Amino acid sequence: MLSSEGLYQLFNIPAFTTAMTSSTNVSCFHEARRVAIFGGTHGNEMSGVTLVNLWIQNGKEIQRKGVETKPFITNPRAVEKCTRYVDTDLNRAFTTENLSAPSGDDLPYEVQRAQQINETFGPKGSPEAYDVIFDLHNTTSNMGCTLILESSKDHFNLQMMHYIKKAIAPDSCPVLLTEHPLLKYSTSRSVAKHPIGLEVGPQPQGVLRSNIFESMRLVLKHALDFIELFNEGLEFPPCTVDVFRVSEKMDYPRDTNGNIIAMVHPNLQDCDWEPLNPGDPMFQTFDGTTIRYEGAGTVYPTFINEAAYYEKQQAFVTTRRETLAAGAIKKT
Amino acid sequence: MLSSEGLYQLFNIPAFTTAMTSSTNVSCFHEARRVAIFGGTHGNEMSGVTLVNLWIQNGKEIQRKGVETKPFITNPRAVEKCTRYVDTDLNRAFTTENLSAPSGDDLPYEVQRAQQINETFGPKGSPEAYDVIFDLHNTTSNMGCTLILESSKDHFNLQMMHYIKKAIAPDSCPVLLTEHPLLKYSTSRSVAKHPIGLEVGPQPQGVLRSNIFESMRLVLKHALDFIELFNEGLEFPPCTVDVFRVSEKMDYPRDTNGNIIAMVHPNLQDCDWEPLNPGDPMFQTFDGTTIRYEGAGTVYPTFINEAAYYEKQQAFVTTRRETLAAGAIKKT
Repeated sequence: MLSSEGLYQLFNIPAFTTAMTSSTNVSCFHEARRVAIFGGTHGNEMSGVTLVNLWIQNGKEIQRKGVETKPFITNPRAVEKCTRYVDTDLNRAFTTENLSAPSGDDLPYEVQRAQQINETFGPKGSPEAYDVIFDLHNTTSNMGCTLILESSKDHFNLQMMHYIKKAIAPDSCPVLLTEHPLLKYSTSRSVAKHPIGLEVGPQPQGVLRSNIFESMRLVLKHALDFIELFNEGLEFPPCTVDVFRVSEKMDYPRDTNGNIIAMVHPNLQDCDWEPLNPGDPMFQTFDGTTIRYEGAGTVYPTFINEAAYYEKQQAFVTTRRETLAAGAIKKT
Repeated sequence: MLSSEGLYQLFNIPAFTTAMTSSTNVSCFHEARRVAIFGGTHGNEMSGVTLVNLWIQNGKEIQRKGVETKPFITNPRAVEKCTRYVDTDLNRAFTTENLSAPSGDDLPYEVQRAQQINETFGPKGSPEAYDVIFDLHNTTSNMGCTLILESSKDHFNLQMMHYIKKAIAPDSCPVLLTEHPLLKYSTSRSVAKHPIGLEVGPQPQGVLRSNIFESMRLVLKHALDFIELFNEGLEFPPCTVDVFRVSEKMDYPRDTNGNIIAMVHPNLQDCDWEPLNPGDPMFQTFDGTTIRYEGAGTVYPTFINEAAYYEKQQAFVTTRRETLAAGAIKKT
């Protein structure tokens, strides 16, 4: 864990910065005392399942001064079956409708779980909700160690992501901003005041790869260090964070019966976060024809060829680069 | 009790081999007129599912002179659910016990399917059985384009594999020989006189990658070309085939409750077919300790970190290199 002096060195910030900004525009947040780490929201994404189970047995690694960190398996039945979900996708189940439905055994299993999780870690949108929830995911896409941000206005999370990016540099840690009128969905982590998704890949479903496991573990270490420093009273000066904002969902080409008739083009496969320009190869039909991207400008695809998104009619999503400004923050 | 004819069938030995080879040293086989291509034996291994569905719609690509080639989805319910199996692993279900059990709806789905497949393409071990069955599989392991051979005595298959290896060189095409008193299992393809498994990876379950798809397609093209040439009367001279013979099944290190306590070591991950020497890193525990291979000599691991084998208590199998001699063959 870093001391605040260590932090100043890491960021090459003169120690008086804090004092300088504290008199100006500084957003104040309550201490982040209650933090949860969710694994197994999708039962076949093994890094999160394994890390959380490990920390349930021995939480020393995730303990930080002044923080209660709770590791939690969100979808135990799916974990047991090593499947994404049992009845319905838990990570889409935290809608107002589901959370306010009369509870009962006739509800889909994941809706029941969503209600229980909302009771324990929420209620969503209330002052009683957990401060921070990290939700640990894997993807079959070559997304590296991605942080998922739900709101461009969440300065606490922006500061945390800025901190993590700096800490793991020169390795990269892309931020995916899911703020979108249609494409944002009701995640498990959304019950917290500050929801953060970790999406680490490529890793097949049902497989535990040591490199992916250790990457996820390292990002979480830095995230918890940030929270500790914040709770200790460190002020974080204004900064900017480069993000990829979700733009458009792209489906596989299909025939009239809905059957897929093309694959992700080899030039695009594994090229998450790299520019896709108008005219670039996008799909390859089974008879070898190339289908090209015909959008208006450069986009940055991600979630390319994610296994779980075939059923969601999604071959990848396009994103656009954006730089967000985060104001200074400190604890109240 | 088996007749001597039955014995020949059981061991895939042409009944007149002895007489024919005594004068000319050429084994004679009947033409391979009836050939099947199985996809979806595991419903989430997408290359085979997709290729077979494609060829059911339009079989031109797999047509060869003098050969009836039947593309067939073996486990349609598993394909529909995009899961490995529904009740039990179809690719372990072709045991004598299952195939001779009284049929009925109370049998596990895959046992019912095994009986139906055995009726259509077998009966296993009988003269009526299909000549050749290719069974198309994917693996999450970095096995490249692997051919699976069930018997070191099957000179027809050895010649075919020799042909394929030459045709795709300089790309490699390892041959895995599953002949083993304990580790051989009762595959779907085993109903044919000449069963051939194709195991192509790495590809996550539920994902279709264009490179893996095209590799599988190319191997099958060469295999069918071989059969056509054989049926046309071409004699194939004696040759040798380098194979990897299955040796030992290695499980993940586990605690007393059966929970996995280590991952495949990063030095071993993705290193299928590469030598593993005594003292080489094999697993890495969650606290970073390296567990080393302690066998007596060099082995060649494969199926390293295959998703479907966690439930089979298998982290990888070791193999040993061997060179098999294939006698000359021609059609009777």
